[in-house]
Amino acid sequence: MKYSIGIDLGGTNIKGGLLSTDGKLSCRKVVSTCVNEGVKAIAARIAQTIQQVITEVNEETHQSGNSTKEIIGIGLGSPGLIIAGSGIIHFSPNFPGWTDIPLLDYVSDELGDLDIPLYIDNDVNVMVLGELHHGAGVGYENIVALALGTGVGGGVVINRKVYHGSWNTAGELGHTVVQPNGRKCGCGNHGCLEAYAGARHIVERTQQKIIEGRKTCLKLEGLTPKQIAEAATTGDKLAQDIFAETGRYLGIALTSIAHILNPQIAIIGGGIAAAGEELLFQHVRKEFKSRTMDIPGEMEIVPAKLGNEAGLVGAAMLPY
Amino acid sequence: MKYSIGIDLGGTNIKGGLLSTDGKLSCRKVVSTCVNEGVKAIAARIAQTIQQVITEVNEETHQSGNSTKEIIGIGLGSPGLIIAGSGIIHFSPNFPGWTDIPLLDYVSDELGDLDIPLYIDNDVNVMVLGELHHGAGVGYENIVALALGTGVGGGVVINRKVYHGSWNTAGELGHTVVQPNGRKCGCGNHGCLEAYAGARHIVERTQQKIIEGRKTCLKLEGLTPKQIAEAATTGDKLAQDIFAETGRYLGIALTSIAHILNPQIAIIGGGIAAAGEELLFQHVRKEFKSRTMDIPGEMEIVPAKLGNEAGLVGAAMLPY
Repeated sequence: MKYSIGIDLGGTNIKGGLLSTDGKLSCRKVVSTCVNEGVKAIAARIAQTIQQVITEVNEETHQSGNSTKEIIGIGLGSPGLIIAGSGIIHFSPNFPGWTDIPLLDYVSDELGDLDIPLYIDNDVNVMVLGELHHGAGVGYENIVALALGTGVGGGVVINRKVYHGSWNTAGELGHTVVQPNGRKCGCGNHGCLEAYAGARHIVERTQQKIIEGRKTCLKLEGLTPKQIAEAATTGDKLAQDIFAETGRYLGIALTSIAHILNPQIAIIGGGIAAAGEELLFQHVRKEFKSRTMDIPGEMEIVPAKLGNEAGLVGAAMLPY
Repeated sequence: MKYSIGIDLGGTNIKGGLLSTDGKLSCRKVVSTCVNEGVKAIAARIAQTIQQVITEVNEETHQSGNSTKEIIGIGLGSPGLIIAGSGIIHFSPNFPGWTDIPLLDYVSDELGDLDIPLYIDNDVNVMVLGELHHGAGVGYENIVALALGTGVGGGVVINRKVYHGSWNTAGELGHTVVQPNGRKCGCGNHGCLEAYAGARHIVERTQQKIIEGRKTCLKLEGLTPKQIAEAATTGDKLAQDIFAETGRYLGIALTSIAHILNPQIAIIGGGIAAAGEELLFQHVRKEFKSRTMDIPGEMEIVPAKLGNEAGLVGAAMLPY
């Protein structure tokens, strides 16, 4: 059995844990990120989280009388554009002001003489890596994955490796154009998938329909995707239509993606994907099937398996 | 210097030629395909073309007194879905009734004891391979290419290798969705790039505008993309608008493609691309630039360099 440490750097918390080669997480730790304290302080807290995991690993080993667990590496998942292989965060929407931050160097300095190699990648690529090795992607070579959250992240796996592209921005599947003159996306473009399937946009699309007078049990103020999903489950027609339309746009994006990349499987995760088969996935598949060419193989569309654990598991897979 | 033979199998002609490692073609041959005579007859004609090339190579060598040119392999570009590495054509729109045809085996049988390895790939992938090694793709690692002809073909190059995907249908860039409720495409989907930028669709879009009463020098009957391009060059506003709109749809498709794959360069070739910078390419670039995310590197959009030679050059690169 081999072991590695995964660190999931978020805007609120830094999570850490130990992963064994059988995909089991243990020795979990959570530390507040405290974004306002700046990058060096965050690097120190990441190092602290790593140290906490290692301390617990050593204590457990000591208590059980087993032989020492060799940790082959530490992987860090971070939001933002990461320059592959360099340990540098080019920029990150979650950490305002960070430009070309050598985060791994800072963490390494804080760790002192701890001789374990460090790796970093984008949080969505890391999520994809987790699903690839221990989730819905096990047994597949060529995968695309979508993370439906506030934004719509994505990742591309080719021959069981995350593909980074020419400037580390491959896999921005949320910015596949699904409606050329459609809703304005946060990226500046019009009609990206994210402008329909991102959390804020799902809420806005619903609010727009409420304002237009559609009958619904939903309230305009304080609306969340979760409320919409719950209303849909209890039969609210507007809420159901919103998810069906979201599914259709996902199906359109996946059509383009399948024709370009011909993957074996599309994995859809993130909070919005929790809406599940009836509200969301059946509509994705139906739209996809009605649009794609008749080819020898058919891309599967499946929900992610690891949920919130994908970030930690995937980060811990970076050293492999 | 090394040498290889390229064969470009088309619905009308079989073309053959010798390629040297410096990218020069020689000993060109053309034989009629005669589709109606069936696959075995076509295999015999391909073998005949190969033999003609070899005979000329040997004659030239003999006459010049130079040492024998060693031919390292023979590559064949064919329309249709080719099962990579197998020599089998799964199906081809240009050869009705061909299903899982082991074309390379047939050609090999016809060639008898000629001991030169044979390779086959899809004609568009082969075109991309030609541009990659001896055309607009020289010096680039990650490339996408579009061939604007009757249909809109495409190819994807990753790390200087043509990417075939999971079931040999990666790179169907012409079936990127650019207008979800748009024109019906030949593939059955609505709003594919091909439904706007394919030759037939460019003609139909123009005809529709003529029927709607748009002022133009163009005639409804017998209209061709070439006539539209010529009219645009001489100032016909409708013709110019049609190419501008074609360019915008290409820009939309390339936006999705760039966000998914993050290539360094997009190469656009085929008859329609001959419309050139002012009529077409400037509109592609403008639309692309207005839609794509601000990332560290910018994908270039350039015309193909090899023109009609790409098929032969690329086929001859298959053995490498």
